[in-house]
Amino acid sequence: MTKVAVLTSGGDSPGMNAAIRAVVRTGIYYGMEMFGIMRGYNGMLEDDIFPMNSRSVANIIQRGGTILKTARSKEFFTYEGRQKAVANLEKRGINGVVVIGGDGSFTGALKLSTEFNIPCIGLPGTIDKDLYGTDFTIGFDTAVNTAVEAIDKIRDTADAHDRLFIVEVMGRHAGYIALHSGISTGAENILIPEAETNIEEVIASLSEKEKRKKLVNLIVVAEGDEFGGANQIAKIVKERLPHLDTRVSILGHIQRGGSPSAMDRLIASRMGYHAIESLMEGRHNVMVGVLNNEIAYTPLEIAIREKQSISSDWLRIVKILAS
Amino acid sequence: MTKVAVLTSGGDSPGMNAAIRAVVRTGIYYGMEMFGIMRGYNGMLEDDIFPMNSRSVANIIQRGGTILKTARSKEFFTYEGRQKAVANLEKRGINGVVVIGGDGSFTGALKLSTEFNIPCIGLPGTIDKDLYGTDFTIGFDTAVNTAVEAIDKIRDTADAHDRLFIVEVMGRHAGYIALHSGISTGAENILIPEAETNIEEVIASLSEKEKRKKLVNLIVVAEGDEFGGANQIAKIVKERLPHLDTRVSILGHIQRGGSPSAMDRLIASRMGYHAIESLMEGRHNVMVGVLNNEIAYTPLEIAIREKQSISSDWLRIVKILAS
Amino acid sequence: MTKVAVLTSGGDSPGMNAAIRAVVRTGIYYGMEMFGIMRGYNGMLEDDIFPMNSRSVANIIQRGGTILKTARSKEFFTYEGRQKAVANLEKRGINGVVVIGGDGSFTGALKLSTEFNIPCIGLPGTIDKDLYGTDFTIGFDTAVNTAVEAIDKIRDTADAHDRLFIVEVMGRHAGYIALHSGISTGAENILIPEAETNIEEVIASLSEKEKRKKLVNLIVVAEGDEFGGANQIAKIVKERLPHLDTRVSILGHIQRGGSPSAMDRLIASRMGYHAIESLMEGRHNVMVGVLNNEIAYTPLEIAIREKQSISSDWLRIVKILAS
Amino acid sequence: MTKVAVLTSGGDSPGMNAAIRAVVRTGIYYGMEMFGIMRGYNGMLEDDIFPMNSRSVANIIQRGGTILKTARSKEFFTYEGRQKAVANLEKRGINGVVVIGGDGSFTGALKLSTEFNIPCIGLPGTIDKDLYGTDFTIGFDTAVNTAVEAIDKIRDTADAHDRLFIVEVMGRHAGYIALHSGISTGAENILIPEAETNIEEVIASLSEKEKRKKLVNLIVVAEGDEFGGANQIAKIVKERLPHLDTRVSILGHIQRGGSPSAMDRLIASRMGYHAIESLMEGRHNVMVGVLNNEIAYTPLEIAIREKQSISSDWLRIVKILAS
Repeated sequence: MTKVAVLTSGGDSPGMNAAIRAVVRTGIYYGMEMFGIMRGYNGMLEDDIFPMNSRSVANIIQRGGTILKTARSKEFFTYEGRQKAVANLEKRGINGVVVIGGDGSFTGALKLSTEFNIPCIGLPGTIDKDLYGTDFTIGFDTAVNTAVEAIDKIRDTADAHDRLFIVEVMGRHAGYIALHSGISTGAENILIPEAETNIEEVIASLSEKEKRKKLVNLIVVAEGDEFGGANQIAKIVKERLPHLDTRVSILGHIQRGGSPSAMDRLIASRMGYHAIESLMEGRHNVMVGVLNNEIAYTPLEIAIREKQSISSDWLRIVKILAS
Repeated sequence: MTKVAVLTSGGDSPGMNAAIRAVVRTGIYYGMEMFGIMRGYNGMLEDDIFPMNSRSVANIIQRGGTILKTARSKEFFTYEGRQKAVANLEKRGINGVVVIGGDGSFTGALKLSTEFNIPCIGLPGTIDKDLYGTDFTIGFDTAVNTAVEAIDKIRDTADAHDRLFIVEVMGRHAGYIALHSGISTGAENILIPEAETNIEEVIASLSEKEKRKKLVNLIVVAEGDEFGGANQIAKIVKERLPHLDTRVSILGHIQRGGSPSAMDRLIASRMGYHAIESLMEGRHNVMVGVLNNEIAYTPLEIAIREKQSISSDWLRIVKILAS
Repeated sequence: MTKVAVLTSGGDSPGMNAAIRAVVRTGIYYGMEMFGIMRGYNGMLEDDIFPMNSRSVANIIQRGGTILKTARSKEFFTYEGRQKAVANLEKRGINGVVVIGGDGSFTGALKLSTEFNIPCIGLPGTIDKDLYGTDFTIGFDTAVNTAVEAIDKIRDTADAHDRLFIVEVMGRHAGYIALHSGISTGAENILIPEAETNIEEVIASLSEKEKRKKLVNLIVVAEGDEFGGANQIAKIVKERLPHLDTRVSILGHIQRGGSPSAMDRLIASRMGYHAIESLMEGRHNVMVGVLNNEIAYTPLEIAIREKQSISSDWLRIVKILAS
Repeated sequence: MTKVAVLTSGGDSPGMNAAIRAVVRTGIYYGMEMFGIMRGYNGMLEDDIFPMNSRSVANIIQRGGTILKTARSKEFFTYEGRQKAVANLEKRGINGVVVIGGDGSFTGALKLSTEFNIPCIGLPGTIDKDLYGTDFTIGFDTAVNTAVEAIDKIRDTADAHDRLFIVEVMGRHAGYIALHSGISTGAENILIPEAETNIEEVIASLSEKEKRKKLVNLIVVAEGDEFGGANQIAKIVKERLPHLDTRVSILGHIQRGGSPSAMDRLIASRMGYHAIESLMEGRHNVMVGVLNNEIAYTPLEIAIREKQSISSDWLRIVKILAS
């Protein structure tokens, strides 16, 4: 009988529980013995591994966070650490691991498979949508909706006071949350790491709108924008346009939590199902993604190495719709 | 100068306002003169047409419903009616119409273009996602999320009482809302028009779960399921499994309203932008859709005639994950 | 050492978990031994009683439903049933019971105390807010907010189509949900069991608004209105005003579920705390309520017998604001 | 005929629109001529005053922000400024003003009435609930619910990572938002301006919980806590308990916006109605509040001068329930 363990690793994202549920239930359906590993690779190292059945994952599809908890593990990045971890898998006869997380988590999975020949499957669980090989990552849609709801609230206040709000959303290396939430809230400017920020253009556009008495303004910035986030932008705007009533809001950790959106539950369920199918078909050491509505398998090393790029079409739409 | 009018027609769907905004702002960006038509083809007939500018569509991206209102029009289905409507366009020099709605609305647009040679563009605005030629329709994602939030609430009660709930969602001819909301809430059975409903199988699965003391059960039914909706199913279940505590909930009209989800705002913005681009490029009488993440143009007659089909993969996933 | 058990009974309501948490944690703080009873009086009868500690109630304050589940019990309404139930309490030395529920549940508690001398405390857990002796019941505020969010969505659609919507909310004997949700959504008419429904007046007011072209109309009806709920009202309106586009929406079970509002969590916490305080002070067989912001104790027999009345001031406000 | 103007002033709060609607509709019902003043006292100074009718306030009861916009005005704080403002009222014959705002706004109203003999009514519109003479302020309940939803999301992440989160909510001089949202989310510590913060006790309680492996911890701080907000607390915790994974989240401006809760719509409607009733009965220069469920009138100078105090009962409940 095949024995498969599942873990969540790295930053948590909404929908991880739906993915765990799908992995466990599909495995059980196919007669596998299923295990959960607590706190990512830490639990593998510390032997915090336990059997899971259909009931273990009842009533979790709608919950944010992850019932398996998550963490980053320094020890696992040593060879000795991994040996210890693998011993804990082996003593239970676990011969497959599903890793739900981002590229850091997949690096661990790749080591497991190349050094110890343990079949691994990666599921893209990250709010940042910055993984190559998939159009969706588990948690992205929820994070965007959370940001949109927050910015809608901020706009009420901006509108009541004729203020400029500079809102910072998550995304250290990727601007997808900023792009999607900015378009969805009608932001006048969207600043992201993938496109050079021309601060003179931002100032000019604010200045021109001020002249037109279009006083409600909203700028959405990804935390990883090369200009340095909302506080930096605000500092410059206040110097250059001192009579604008400019405020900053940093949305922060609320973007990681919350009940997952329908989309995130759906793709998590679909990917979790295919993680097990993939193991059964002997397709190992790949990330399960969705490309053009079809399930797509990307070798873990490629998923880690390559990057997505943002279409310039979107940036053009931002500019035109904010006019 | 090009003059373009926009209208919403048929059942309203969340995101229609975001689409109107994108159409109007993109048109203005390209120097067009823009018009709004009230209450679908009725306003065209009754000359309820007014100029729109950038401010007309300010602060609407987040609103449910449609600022242009919507209706079905009997008179427009006569040739005389259409003549009268076209006269109202012509006296203003309107030489392009963007119609946001479903297949009934596109039929009107097709008549306008074939009989009177008025360039028309269709945008898929329907919560049912039953249009050929697009992976997304404006409003579908919001409707699914509304259904999911409602079913999550119902599950709290189902769980507290160990009840079976049969929840009916919208979808007269299409089971997409039922499919997506059912998977996302972990429904045990999902009954849709596109798949034959085997009531014996439903009874058997409930009966088997009852034996396993898995008492919380949820069935999601599309209103157009050939078995006749939630009340019909409940009647049979109550006869066959009389000691189950079976309840019905029909979600109804709440599924049409509400602030649009990020996804619906995004695709509405993108499609609205491309509606104008398409008119400018002389591509007429097509529906603007999104297929495999790319903008796709489907001739209106094909969008009306053809149907989407539901992948059997999904139905398999439902069965396995509910186990 | 005092041993106290807690149960939830009757229809579930959001905030019951917050109340359970407060009862258990306060009891533990004071050195009591705490127990949970499953499925209301059924669990007492069937000996489904288990010890609870601080961890048993961790991370439940935000959850809808009730972790102790709830039910109605026929057997408990016989003397023999109650004897059996009390035996199960006595063999554990349980000498106090906190019952969270409505008047049916309090009737059981009263029997326990009068027949078997078991100190009982009632906490008002019902979405209907129909209990005497308290300004708030656990779950009411959440139910009203759920109804309001649903009606806001329906209004989007009503507005887009110029329709009349007749929305039915819960409340078999009490019109509070209808009253509060109706005022909060700007309903033109609110029909409740506590006030005679003058259907001629309703028709006249709709007819007058139709003449003024105020086409968006909303009527909120309590299910227990003497005129017979939304479908009955709609039937009459359709006969009398056939050219109005009249629709019905019955909100149903969604009103019972969902994460409790801040207010419900707060009063549940406060009442749970005072339930234990009250037991400690030897004040038994009372319902803990909040009157004029102060904790108030009402003997169970009075809480069951007396009824709240709705101030006519509110009905006047409804009429004026809908004009 | 009586002519009454309404304005919103100071920080915006959810429910202000519901109050404007109630004031305008009640005035019209009683045959008054109604006016709106834009941007608080600024609009009075700059003669930005316009007539309002029943339609002006249609479909706004559910909207956050304020359609009359709001601002603080320096010029109004000079006598000359006020003379100019009053002239604008007088030329229209406006002989009553309803001011929706906080104590700063009421100070302006008091000047209007004492210096120029213009009858004023204050409505408590502030998210902080820090006004004397009322149990509810318009916007408080919504702000608390917004904070609670945000903290629920943060708890998902805290729980997934076993982190300590220190969350800062609004409240420069008042701890009500912190108190209510902290109790409602099960915070371990709640730090507010009204109670001395004993940082040693906070450290000791965290340290003790760490030993018990109760790793999920949440501290809610009012921005006006004398210890200096979340960042200051975090700095000390990190020094003293360096192996705790401690994070800060400052909720910020999202707390001011959003669709008002049912409670806020209801009290805003009730207070708006009574503002007009009060003017009609010749009761001037008072704030309309709700005390013990009854409408209560507090002279403006007392509403400005006196402060509410927080019951120590609540602080005791916090301590016990977090154990």
